[in-house]
Amino acid sequence: MNKLPDIKTNFPEWYQEVIYQAKLADHAPVRGCIVIRPYGNAIWENIKKVLDDRIKETGHENAIFPLFIPQSFLSKEAEHVEGFAPELAVVTHAGGKELEEPLVVRPTSETMIHHMFAQWIVSWRDLPLKINQWANVVRWEKRPRAFLRTTEFFWQEGHTAHATKQEAQEETLMMLDEYVKLAQNYLAIPVIKGRKTKHEQFPGAEATYTFEAFLMDGKALQMGTSHLLSQSFAHAFEMKFQDQEGNLSYPYLTSWGTTTRLVGALVGSHGDDRGLILPPKIAPIQLVIVPIIKKDTRDVVLNYVQTLAAELKKSGISVRVDADESQTPGAKFYEWELKGVPLRFEIGARDIASNVVVAVSRLGKEKETVSTENLTSWVHTKLDTIQEELFQIAQQRYAQMWHKTERLADFALKLESDNGIYQVGWCQDHDCEKQLKQYAASIRCMIESKDLGTCFGCGKTSLGDVIVGRSY
Amino acid sequence: MNKLPDIKTNFPEWYQEVIYQAKLADHAPVRGCIVIRPYGNAIWENIKKVLDDRIKETGHENAIFPLFIPQSFLSKEAEHVEGFAPELAVVTHAGGKELEEPLVVRPTSETMIHHMFAQWIVSWRDLPLKINQWANVVRWEKRPRAFLRTTEFFWQEGHTAHATKQEAQEETLMMLDEYVKLAQNYLAIPVIKGRKTKHEQFPGAEATYTFEAFLMDGKALQMGTSHLLSQSFAHAFEMKFQDQEGNLSYPYLTSWGTTTRLVGALVGSHGDDRGLILPPKIAPIQLVIVPIIKKDTRDVVLNYVQTLAAELKKSGISVRVDADESQTPGAKFYEWELKGVPLRFEIGARDIASNVVVAVSRLGKEKETVSTENLTSWVHTKLDTIQEELFQIAQQRYAQMWHKTERLADFALKLESDNGIYQVGWCQDHDCEKQLKQYAASIRCMIESKDLGTCFGCGKTSLGDVIVGRSY
Repeated sequence: MNKLPDIKTNFPEWYQEVIYQAKLADHAPVRGCIVIRPYGNAIWENIKKVLDDRIKETGHENAIFPLFIPQSFLSKEAEHVEGFAPELAVVTHAGGKELEEPLVVRPTSETMIHHMFAQWIVSWRDLPLKINQWANVVRWEKRPRAFLRTTEFFWQEGHTAHATKQEAQEETLMMLDEYVKLAQNYLAIPVIKGRKTKHEQFPGAEATYTFEAFLMDGKALQMGTSHLLSQSFAHAFEMKFQDQEGNLSYPYLTSWGTTTRLVGALVGSHGDDRGLILPPKIAPIQLVIVPIIKKDTRDVVLNYVQTLAAELKKSGISVRVDADESQTPGAKFYEWELKGVPLRFEIGARDIASNVVVAVSRLGKEKETVSTENLTSWVHTKLDTIQEELFQIAQQRYAQMWHKTERLADFALKLESDNGIYQVGWCQDHDCEKQLKQYAASIRCMIESKDLGTCFGCGKTSLGDVIVGRSY
Repeated sequence: MNKLPDIKTNFPEWYQEVIYQAKLADHAPVRGCIVIRPYGNAIWENIKKVLDDRIKETGHENAIFPLFIPQSFLSKEAEHVEGFAPELAVVTHAGGKELEEPLVVRPTSETMIHHMFAQWIVSWRDLPLKINQWANVVRWEKRPRAFLRTTEFFWQEGHTAHATKQEAQEETLMMLDEYVKLAQNYLAIPVIKGRKTKHEQFPGAEATYTFEAFLMDGKALQMGTSHLLSQSFAHAFEMKFQDQEGNLSYPYLTSWGTTTRLVGALVGSHGDDRGLILPPKIAPIQLVIVPIIKKDTRDVVLNYVQTLAAELKKSGISVRVDADESQTPGAKFYEWELKGVPLRFEIGARDIASNVVVAVSRLGKEKETVSTENLTSWVHTKLDTIQEELFQIAQQRYAQMWHKTERLADFALKLESDNGIYQVGWCQDHDCEKQLKQYAASIRCMIESKDLGTCFGCGKTSLGDVIVGRSY
């Protein structure tokens, strides 16, 4: 195992290295793709479980639509096909023959799902229709980066149809809020939510909402989006329903998705020079127990830690005992810190005799001696504390890099040197937005605040604040 | 809703119709594919949950490998590429360009996973390596049939590597037994397990084991397979490890998989003229409550059924209240019977006054009046009984169509007219196996029994019994 690159001075290298060293993922022999290894997949499964429960509790049902989309489907919505055409992977041959119509490997499923919706929606009684799909999608990626941008990635895509625009708007914002709760309460990542500019919205949408994280290098990451598609796709796919008055109407549509990129957001939000730091609510292993084994007390210690682990597991804590006798305790500490396990116990014969365990939080270095009386409830409380601390540390980081500022000239150089979060006013003219390009920056989203009076670009009256930053 | 085709005289039509009418799936606008609708997907999610838990409890970890496989990978194992070549879908263009090397959409992932295994396995300490993947795969299907044969289907594929052949053999048979338990204890489908003949085994495997169901029309369905791959793939991918003596060895490999075909097996194993019958342990809705609503007691009845449903849900029963007032109770009975819900309550004001509910099992027609005292435990017991009854009914069906017989001439005509399970002896010569082709039949598997003395084909001494049947 090599030392990790310095996280402060070389974050991009640190990011890649920690992913491979902690065995979250490996390079795949296909351009732009990764192999998600068991430890990385366990994080993704935990995220999926939390989100899937919420998707179901908010009244959606899961379904599965085909991987392949006839090329003609994508062309039905003009903006949509233009937006995705350069990223498509195309199947031209199958079953030993050239296909009459090529099939596109889905980059997203609006066109396929709307084709089906058009058949399922007949009357107002069929609305709202609220469907979600967990799937793999493919977008040919020029500059791949593990979890953040990969040619194949994994996501959920929700697709809903409603009788009124207001209902569709409420759905769009409700799911955005579910995403924000997932990010903040489970991933311990503070996010900035808002609306994308016209120029940045989803091809074919009326409005796109986003939630954005700022990673440890001060660059923004779009963690997911929720779109008010309104009626454009309904028109394109001739999706009509008979309303309560007997008239034919087009439903209002939404779609929303988040991806394996969330694993990348976790990695880039919480680590340090020792490796990952995983929030307890998502960590595949919440507590690792390292028995301190000496020859004469070996069996006593091993039995003790197994019994203790079983007891803690029963209360719902995810525990791993690392009893590998070919490794030193020091090597184990190193490995489990690299892997970001939030809490560690070190237990030797003397601790057992004194009814204590030695506990080390992944956030600190100091060892704590803890009585085994009420140990289960101590662990639960400690994990909650670590979860909370992680979120606070990230919030403090945001506070330090968050600048309210007036004109582009005032912050352009700082943006170039330090990245960071720049809250500015905007006149909503694309010409001003475009100026950010030369600094490799963009408007991440339009937020609800209106603290700044003038546009960062032209100096005219601002119509509302926006967040500017560089991004992944 | 149209009447279902007669299940006895027209099973293939019944099978298709019940799937579409019960909304398990819908036709997709891509050849050979289906859309799995929420009700069908809920069944699949329940099956996945049971199997995923067992896969993890038996020491495997989930990972995710790429959808695309470089064409050259498939060619590394000669039998493997020959077996799959006619079924491949091929991506030739991506990102707006023709690819230098075409990418195959995985028909199975041995080649990709073994490529990675070759990098992960260095020493005996890395073994056994036990990985599973839940994924979509594509095999171009000439005669698709919903759930049973679709171009894209969904499965898990387990892949393991072991230091010794014996360990690999044990793994292969252990996972076969896990599949059998899933089929029998959860899907209520009796299965016949055994080894495939050389001619029918997986391309590249040393031995393939199968578990087969016989659907209501007497045709066999291969529900899944477990392969002892042994060392052929390890050689092809130069997968070597240093053993405890310091010598370089090739590991012994296994792979095993089962698919969304299990949903088709459920449909084809338990239905009747009214529709599906789902085993309680897999049913998305175990109990449907139909309130019998009269104007003056409407609120009392609706409140009562909601409270009762909440109470039953708390004890882990999956309950649906169908309070749709635009439908008659009769229409609801029809719909939920079509969808195979195992148990129904009908509750009106008079029942509430008498502290009873009217219960109807999906397996019978008689109504049962049940006291509300200890109703929760009554429901649990009743669901267990229905689960058990379903399995017994299927077992009786097998007993009726199971024939032990001597020579092909004795059963060929009966096989042609009735399908069925034919247990016969076999000399293990492929010439005898080939004779079954003219009756559109095959050896489904070699079983452990040795009840028959002579080969069904040539009349020479049998080396062991086999099951012969027609199949999907």
